[in-house]
Amino acid sequence: MIDEFELLERIRLAVARADAAVEIGIGDDAAAIHLGGGRRLLLTTDALVAGVHFDPVTEPPADVARRAVAANVSDIAAMGGRPRWVLLSLVLPPGTDAAWVETLHKGFADAAAEAGAVVVGGNLACGRDLVLSLTVAGETQAAPLRRSGARAGDLIFLTGPVGASAAGRTAAGTGPAQAHEARSLRARYLHPPFRLDAAAVLARTASAAIDISDGLAQDLGHLADASGVAVALDLHRLPVAFGHPRDPDGAGRALALGGGEDYELAATVPPANLPLLSRLAAEAGIGLYRVGEVVSHHPPGTVLGVERDGSEHALPRTGFRHFG
Amino acid sequence: MIDEFELLERIRLAVARADAAVEIGIGDDAAAIHLGGGRRLLLTTDALVAGVHFDPVTEPPADVARRAVAANVSDIAAMGGRPRWVLLSLVLPPGTDAAWVETLHKGFADAAAEAGAVVVGGNLACGRDLVLSLTVAGETQAAPLRRSGARAGDLIFLTGPVGASAAGRTAAGTGPAQAHEARSLRARYLHPPFRLDAAAVLARTASAAIDISDGLAQDLGHLADASGVAVALDLHRLPVAFGHPRDPDGAGRALALGGGEDYELAATVPPANLPLLSRLAAEAGIGLYRVGEVVSHHPPGTVLGVERDGSEHALPRTGFRHFG
Repeated sequence: MIDEFELLERIRLAVARADAAVEIGIGDDAAAIHLGGGRRLLLTTDALVAGVHFDPVTEPPADVARRAVAANVSDIAAMGGRPRWVLLSLVLPPGTDAAWVETLHKGFADAAAEAGAVVVGGNLACGRDLVLSLTVAGETQAAPLRRSGARAGDLIFLTGPVGASAAGRTAAGTGPAQAHEARSLRARYLHPPFRLDAAAVLARTASAAIDISDGLAQDLGHLADASGVAVALDLHRLPVAFGHPRDPDGAGRALALGGGEDYELAATVPPANLPLLSRLAAEAGIGLYRVGEVVSHHPPGTVLGVERDGSEHALPRTGFRHFG
Repeated sequence: MIDEFELLERIRLAVARADAAVEIGIGDDAAAIHLGGGRRLLLTTDALVAGVHFDPVTEPPADVARRAVAANVSDIAAMGGRPRWVLLSLVLPPGTDAAWVETLHKGFADAAAEAGAVVVGGNLACGRDLVLSLTVAGETQAAPLRRSGARAGDLIFLTGPVGASAAGRTAAGTGPAQAHEARSLRARYLHPPFRLDAAAVLARTASAAIDISDGLAQDLGHLADASGVAVALDLHRLPVAFGHPRDPDGAGRALALGGGEDYELAATVPPANLPLLSRLAAEAGIGLYRVGEVVSHHPPGTVLGVERDGSEHALPRTGFRHFG
């Protein structure tokens, strides 16, 4: 069994090379490259594998395509940028239905357009697994948001509710007799948000940000590691979507902390920036959920859960492991 | 069975969207995007699937990595550009050896460095097939070389010999008792060239270019289609590498025309540019092989073979089919 994070560190060391144009290389949500005049090119890649990340039988191709785009858009958004150009690298099993592939591509194009981007290229290959590997190039005029900028005293915000997507993934197995709540959860899974308006606000106000699509506790832990800080999550403040199981001490909380695939952003904001954040969020018409604080009284990388009564405990870094 | 080229056309129509910054979208070797000041960003993606494009048992990981980089570098070179930044999207089967993955990544980084590029990001996912999907972003200051610029009277050049890589792929099965020639062919397969110096010369002199990694006849047919011209190949002029089977009317010719994976470029050059081409090629120390001419006396898209005695016949568009 590969230990994923150890392997990623070995890979990071194996590929490390200096390049004057590269502002941010491997290790953040996306790479950032200086284009001159303050412009940065952002580059990210993410893949969905059938049977691992989606079910091509129960999930419509347009939804699958949109989730593949969302996985990459979320990385660009976490850097405070906007996606512009999309490349598609697909592995198709022999006998894949051509009409399905065509609908999938319409879905890619529509999702890209919704995110302000266009599909500019791709590749088709043949293999046993259906694999959708996307690369998205984006841009930002401002300094990219990194994982490493959080400082003690900063407040932690989420761009939306957590846990509902994971609940909706499970809800796929409940069959046709789905209640209204189950359908709502399912929609969160199939149709995740693009948090680009929030990203634009956070680009001007946040000290650090990360895409939490692998799970809130795990990804916030990565931000804490990169920033050399500890983070304290107010567990009773975690926003849950309509239809989310409302048992804060049981399965619902576990999904909120480790379910993943919400494609929301977590960001840290210095207290001095709160008035600006409040104004920009109101102008943009976006919701932001304050869920905790960056703290200094615990070892760097610690992710604490704080109960309503003020008691604290270290949270396990639960989340999606690609080689679990 | 999917008809690959019909499917690609359906995909191209499905994703077509207007974007002011996009100079070249789907349908050429790479996408080209205006960055301002004459600079263009070039984007391409290509994938190698284990068991389809390489054999992870008999091919060392560093060679596999380099071929994956070469497949993308060749696309950037065909646009007259230089690769700069590389993204790696890998699907690894459960139980993949971590040391193999690490060596593979050192190979990616070394191959990128050889091409003047750096690895800036990646993604790991789990699946049954080992898939190496790479995206390379490059740059060019000049107008990108397209497939569509060839005109009747232009001369056709290759940047290197053809057919040896395909012969070397087969040579893998001949076991340890390989002769010197077989080893030479094998090296052409495992260690294809990066034609970046030739690309820089062609960027200043050619009217059109294409990466011929899917096979000379097939890919030159794509160039002929895009340019609305016919092309005539002087079959007796086709350059074959040392060790290539020297039977011009049999298997050797078939490999040269349709074997693929040579990662050479084919380009068309207007006669008026020949003196400049000759001078620049000499300055750069590169070889170019004149193999034919763009002609007007046949329907657009025709690929003709011309024998030494001047007799002509239409060539089948043989080459690698991703869904063959």
